[in-house]
Amino acid sequence: MIISVDLRIGIGTDVHRLVEGRSMRIAGLDWPAETSGPEGHSDGDVVLHAVCDALLSAAGLGDLGSNFGTSEPEWAGAAGNALLAETLVRVRAAGWQVSNVAVQLIGNRPRMGSRRAEAEAALAEAHGISVSLSATTTDGLGLTGRGEGIAAVATALITR
Amino acid sequence: MIISVDLRIGIGTDVHRLVEGRSMRIAGLDWPAETSGPEGHSDGDVVLHAVCDALLSAAGLGDLGSNFGTSEPEWAGAAGNALLAETLVRVRAAGWQVSNVAVQLIGNRPRMGSRRAEAEAALAEAHGISVSLSATTTDGLGLTGRGEGIAAVATALITR
Amino acid sequence: MIISVDLRIGIGTDVHRLVEGRSMRIAGLDWPAETSGPEGHSDGDVVLHAVCDALLSAAGLGDLGSNFGTSEPEWAGAAGNALLAETLVRVRAAGWQVSNVAVQLIGNRPRMGSRRAEAEAALAEAHGISVSLSATTTDGLGLTGRGEGIAAVATALITR
Repeated sequence: MIISVDLRIGIGTDVHRLVEGRSMRIAGLDWPAETSGPEGHSDGDVVLHAVCDALLSAAGLGDLGSNFGTSEPEWAGAAGNALLAETLVRVRAAGWQVSNVAVQLIGNRPRMGSRRAEAEAALAEAHGISVSLSATTTDGLGLTGRGEGIAAVATALITR
Repeated sequence: MIISVDLRIGIGTDVHRLVEGRSMRIAGLDWPAETSGPEGHSDGDVVLHAVCDALLSAAGLGDLGSNFGTSEPEWAGAAGNALLAETLVRVRAAGWQVSNVAVQLIGNRPRMGSRRAEAEAALAEAHGISVSLSATTTDGLGLTGRGEGIAAVATALITR
Repeated sequence: MIISVDLRIGIGTDVHRLVEGRSMRIAGLDWPAETSGPEGHSDGDVVLHAVCDALLSAAGLGDLGSNFGTSEPEWAGAAGNALLAETLVRVRAAGWQVSNVAVQLIGNRPRMGSRRAEAEAALAEAHGISVSLSATTTDGLGLTGRGEGIAAVATALITR
């Protein structure tokens, strides 16, 4: 008997610049107490962007730029949750189911600890997938340590 | 017949600042010839910290901060091997077995090559898991290239 | 009935410095319109180097340095595709098959989007493995954002 388990992994990272006076939306949550937020047209949700890129990568479907870039202007500035919803439509349409996604926020702010469970539950409820969320800092070093930006790294496991 | 294979992946990174005159303990080994080492209360073992974070991430159990942070002060300053042992207690208590962990050290020092097999064997002996250890540099660039710090990135695959 | 599926994951990152006047070879493709390229003796193909390191890591076979470093001088300066071919010989000789590899290019240049399918097809044709290729930038921050270098991060899933 041959058992075939078709599994694929993917990886994704994202970095956004932080600027004073911008609102912060990370991991699909609003962080109203933060005094700076990601610059740019989109919400700059590095956590959800990395999750999308890891899922697209696992499915061999390109990346955020090739899926939601200049060729599809209706997605310009879309919220992270909207991009993740559409990413999952495309990944599932290609025949894949999500086993799980793991994503780590890298930066000084926001402090994820107290709201990790809330963020994970919201993602499970909204998207029907298991996303484990963690966070770390870089000991004051590099672009995230200096507070210039915020980063995330994600990996995804999918099956069909 | 339905075959269900419950697999999860996780990811973790860590960065610590290097300072002159500190002893270096990386990947669970002492490096007495090194003249600088990670700053801080813990041993700053970025390799084992990244391994712990990848395992916790895969199991959906949070991260080093949420497990061994200010809410559990008895772990303040614990050695990397102690954190890994307790991480495995918690991951296994949640019903998971470790398939393998892969971790890459990113930095100029220490030179892992000559002691990779020793470190891998010590981790397998102490913890009963397969950890593959590799190393790279960043061509003199960034926080690790300038020698300001040392980094590691790990991924874990677990099953139940 | 016990079903045993022997799966391993690996991870690899790479960074190379970019210098004016060097030709650029990334993801196994030549990029003749680029005016800078990776410094060094090898072609500096960070994408294929990260792929090799992820595969070696998954198989527990060390890294590029331990496999193709000073102990095996015949590989000094080898092209990324030659290193990947030999990496696969060693991974397969250890009994492993490649499920898939996912790799993300991190940097301002080259713009991968228009040639992603070409690069993926060439890697599948040359090596008989599924490599999904994606790309991102770091919003002008850090070593890749400033254009000092180019980076890649890869993960591999292998089975036997």
